[in-house]
Amino acid sequence: MISKEDFTKLHLEISPYTHRTPVLTSDLLNKLAKTEIYFKCENFQKMGAFKMRGATAAILALSKKERAKGVVTHSSGNFAQAVSLSAKNLGIPAYIVMPSSAPQVKKDAVKTYGGQITECEPNIKARETAAEKIQKETGATFLHPSNDLNVIYGQGTGAKELLEDFPDLDIIITPVGGGGLIAGTALAVDFYTKKCKTIGAEPFEVDDAYRSLKTGKIETNSSTNTIADGLKTQLGDKNFPIIQKFVSEIIRVEEEEIINAMKLIWERMKIVVEPSSAVAFAAILREKEKFRNKKVGIIISGGNVDLSNLPF
Amino acid sequence: MISKEDFTKLHLEISPYTHRTPVLTSDLLNKLAKTEIYFKCENFQKMGAFKMRGATAAILALSKKERAKGVVTHSSGNFAQAVSLSAKNLGIPAYIVMPSSAPQVKKDAVKTYGGQITECEPNIKARETAAEKIQKETGATFLHPSNDLNVIYGQGTGAKELLEDFPDLDIIITPVGGGGLIAGTALAVDFYTKKCKTIGAEPFEVDDAYRSLKTGKIETNSSTNTIADGLKTQLGDKNFPIIQKFVSEIIRVEEEEIINAMKLIWERMKIVVEPSSAVAFAAILREKEKFRNKKVGIIISGGNVDLSNLPF
Repeated sequence: MISKEDFTKLHLEISPYTHRTPVLTSDLLNKLAKTEIYFKCENFQKMGAFKMRGATAAILALSKKERAKGVVTHSSGNFAQAVSLSAKNLGIPAYIVMPSSAPQVKKDAVKTYGGQITECEPNIKARETAAEKIQKETGATFLHPSNDLNVIYGQGTGAKELLEDFPDLDIIITPVGGGGLIAGTALAVDFYTKKCKTIGAEPFEVDDAYRSLKTGKIETNSSTNTIADGLKTQLGDKNFPIIQKFVSEIIRVEEEEIINAMKLIWERMKIVVEPSSAVAFAAILREKEKFRNKKVGIIISGGNVDLSNLPF
Repeated sequence: MISKEDFTKLHLEISPYTHRTPVLTSDLLNKLAKTEIYFKCENFQKMGAFKMRGATAAILALSKKERAKGVVTHSSGNFAQAVSLSAKNLGIPAYIVMPSSAPQVKKDAVKTYGGQITECEPNIKARETAAEKIQKETGATFLHPSNDLNVIYGQGTGAKELLEDFPDLDIIITPVGGGGLIAGTALAVDFYTKKCKTIGAEPFEVDDAYRSLKTGKIETNSSTNTIADGLKTQLGDKNFPIIQKFVSEIIRVEEEEIINAMKLIWERMKIVVEPSSAVAFAAILREKEKFRNKKVGIIISGGNVDLSNLPF
């Protein structure tokens, strides 16, 4: 596990390639939630999501020789864009395996950031096979979007910045998907605060992390019918122990609550956030008593949405 | 006409009741437009639009005796909310005449901010009659949303802040509706800069200000088929002379360009802006040569949109 000193150093190292995102507040939403909320706006991050931090950290951790051969990942979402852009920033090739069914807009975004796309059948086996083939052919290093320690550390730097700006937060809450963001956040909270707790938020529809904490082993989802498309993945063996050790609890929310929370953020704060980001705010609204009169930080995970397909 | 000293003082006086809104930039949009754009985000202003500045300035300009009797306006848009909220902030009554056809969400917003609504038939005659009746009965002062010198001065304080943050702008561009924002902006530009120009932007569909500058008299619109619902109104005798004197030109844009510009801002900057705000950015994209390699400020007028009725 990383030390506090190395974590601080890692933050410094990724800083030239990432934005220090602003923290926004809203009197109206505070009144509504009866608490004091600090929104860490990773929707304003480069390529529109916190994933930029982890991808940059993971590439910076590679040796010069490894870097020269490039990086490979399979993703149809934000991590594909994050790897493409951070590889471009660091002057190395990025090979992105995407399911042929991925929306053209996502393929275009990856291309814009310089990623080299290999299309495959839309199933996880085909994705893994294609990525392995590229690894063998090019010698590129495979990067996992959430179950990679350097990725986890990178994702935690958002919480570090938030705590530098607002050191006396009582709680930081993040959405939970593959577990990279919440694990990194929990580490930062442990490093830089005394009294702050880390809480996760998850849709009932994909409550694998909630169940994993209950059973003590990594659970999966039999179905993934949630609007929070970034949260459909499961935890991994690298982030789960960190989550077990440092995360107080995971709050689950209904789909309707996610849409309502997302609409409130758009309408009241005038910012574009992904459904996954709204999950954490929905959790605060659902369990108001738990957050009452507390100072709560939320990591707004990203803002990449398809405007032609909104839930309201 | 106000002096520079009094304008500076007015800005100080409204400051406790308004936000100093942030200025955002986007590398991607700069590349696209081949210029350097500074977005003054009045969508983050209290009640979600620059109108808060003018309404506050107008109420502060009233005598103690006048204030006690309250203020009245007729509006179904942002000015109704701005008058309601600034009256509430200053502890005086606000009487708002709204057409019975106004969306419930707008009536609710006015009520939230403490405005007392009188409903009337949805035509300008009925609105004026109802407002006059309230004036007579209560002694309240009528506030015009754009053709009132104090309102105009208030609206100009956004440009003042933008120029304090970025003193070397070449151009500031704003949308043109009733003329209050552009007139106030042009005054601030004249007060605080030497080389900066003020340019207006308007939909072709309601190009009354463009035609007014050509003919030298206030023109009206025979139809108002634009998505930029805040720009349907015409200039007035107080703001037109200021616009004639200080505004370099008015650029007109097509409806499709407005929607495209709005979508670009939402997608790339992750902020919610009104169609009216996108008009100014659309003008830059339409006349790229004019803005090439310039430093351009845009007043993003507001972010109050009906999320269930988006053009994309």
